Amino acid sequence: MRYAALAAVLSCTPLTLFADPLPSWNDSDSKNTIIEFIGNVTDPRGPNYVTPADRIAVFDNDGTLWAEQPVYFQFIFAMDQLAELAAQDPSILSTPALKAAAEGDLQTILEGGHDALIEVVNASHSGSSVEVFQASVADWLGTARHPETDLPYDQMTYQPMVELLRYLRDKDFKTYIVSGGGLHFMRVFAEQAYGIPPEQILGTYGETTYDSVDGTPVINKAPGIAFIDDKEGKPINIERTIGKRPIFAGGNSDGDFAMLEWTTAGDGPRLGVLIHHTDADREWAYDRESPIGRLVDGLDKGPDMGWVIVDMANDWSRIYTGAN
Amino acid sequence: MRYAALAAVLSCTPLTLFADPLPSWNDSDSKNTIIEFIGNVTDPRGPNYVTPADRIAVFDNDGTLWAEQPVYFQFIFAMDQLAELAAQDPSILSTPALKAAAEGDLQTILEGGHDALIEVVNASHSGSSVEVFQASVADWLGTARHPETDLPYDQMTYQPMVELLRYLRDKDFKTYIVSGGGLHFMRVFAEQAYGIPPEQILGTYGETTYDSVDGTPVINKAPGIAFIDDKEGKPINIERTIGKRPIFAGGNSDGDFAMLEWTTAGDGPRLGVLIHHTDADREWAYDRESPIGRLVDGLDKGPDMGWVIVDMANDWSRIYTGAN
Repeated sequence: MRYAALAAVLSCTPLTLFADPLPSWNDSDSKNTIIEFIGNVTDPRGPNYVTPADRIAVFDNDGTLWAEQPVYFQFIFAMDQLAELAAQDPSILSTPALKAAAEGDLQTILEGGHDALIEVVNASHSGSSVEVFQASVADWLGTARHPETDLPYDQMTYQPMVELLRYLRDKDFKTYIVSGGGLHFMRVFAEQAYGIPPEQILGTYGETTYDSVDGTPVINKAPGIAFIDDKEGKPINIERTIGKRPIFAGGNSDGDFAMLEWTTAGDGPRLGVLIHHTDADREWAYDRESPIGRLVDGLDKGPDMGWVIVDMANDWSRIYTGAN
Repeated sequence: MRYAALAAVLSCTPLTLFADPLPSWNDSDSKNTIIEFIGNVTDPRGPNYVTPADRIAVFDNDGTLWAEQPVYFQFIFAMDQLAELAAQDPSILSTPALKAAAEGDLQTILEGGHDALIEVVNASHSGSSVEVFQASVADWLGTARHPETDLPYDQMTYQPMVELLRYLRDKDFKTYIVSGGGLHFMRVFAEQAYGIPPEQILGTYGETTYDSVDGTPVINKAPGIAFIDDKEGKPINIERTIGKRPIFAGGNSDGDFAMLEWTTAGDGPRLGVLIHHTDADREWAYDRESPIGRLVDGLDKGPDMGWVIVDMANDWSRIYTGAN
């Protein structure tokens, strides 16, 4: 090759080839273990090489890819949505839980337990087509602000995790979300926020019906939860939807334990990563006692299973993709 | 560009660029409409251009990608599987339907209706891990032969459809199976037979459980059908799993009607294709009166909706991928 041609090729080589692929991660055991794992499974001459077709990486969303305090953001949407619906038709607030939700009274709803939560989800997440529902979510994301950070919710995604997702895809991983959050809710922002397309998002979903409106078919959201994508539901949904066992799994709570267990119990090289919320200054610090994102089993058993426990306060130099 | 460089580029151009992409399709309106559609949506300068991310093509399996007579091949597997299980433990044949199935007495099972079918499916498709079940399917495909053609079942895939799948992928379509057949059953052969990986196969699925065996997690197949991927279930499953409306759908029976309707009712260019089984000599001829692959609505309403009705006898120069 002539020198001129070589120079031309070099000038086209992306700088990222030589740059740190995870710039928002501080030098740490966590970062080193992740980079070493990815290097190992993508080295075609190494003993731990994994073909691209089997490079499946799965991530929880709430508390893993974006924040989840003081309560799951989708639940804040549900309360705002109920308030908006009630402004047009106050009669929909037919129970104490629904009244509390429309007033943003989280405490009363939580005291109502599972039944109260289902009431709020049904009333705010059904009764329209998937398209109309997702337009509501998009509107809400465009205007709502988090009560503490004042950031749009989709700017409270974690910059270090967005970098990790991108790095995995650069290395021919297929990245999936596997979340207890709602499938239709997440699909509204996940492609733009994380680069993850609709067909790679697994989540909790409600019943849907195939109806005809004036001769035009439409898929409507009906009351009732069809599948809860949490705990053992995560590996079950992964097996059902992806049909392959992932080699990389990221989570942050005991709801992710089975997913990480299933991932790392397979043969060959595997990695489980748990985000430990240790940063009360820049984010929130919570684990064993938190009603949201409770983490006990992961802390007790994860290290013995070789999982990386990310110390958010020490391992991340930056938290949110939005300014903070 | 120098002449030498141009010659080098041309010598590397795959011949398929200039060859007929569907050699097992006779010149016909069906073939022309399909090729024209694919050309239109992939022409970046044309008014009907569709970006690769939205080039979703969905196909039924039984009767669309492979044969389905005298009964769905998976049901023949179920009967053979029951006979094998009963050889080890005759007590499992605890009902008349199960006894009939193990003897290959299809007539008696069909007379038993839906309950008899479910009994047979539960007894033959649950009680083991997904891995063990799929190994049984692989063994069966390796040895079983079709009673009339004497071909291995996975050589009774349709050569013209395998060519169509490949052509769509060459044009940056993502090809999916959306079948009433069993998810775990299809995944055993679909990648090799059709080039469709596990995560692009949607089907009927039974309940699964996440269990621990001697401390090792395993996903087991349990009795009970969790989702039937037929009729309205097809668009519902597509919306749920893919999250995009396909622009191309292929089927062969009224079980595919809703899927084609949902696909072609969307905005922009869309194509629905129905395989009409008209070839009693080389395959089977059946439609309105057939208990398997019944086709009434598709024939009556499809043409007005612009769907291509493929006349197997006249449009295909070859049927099976296996010798015939």
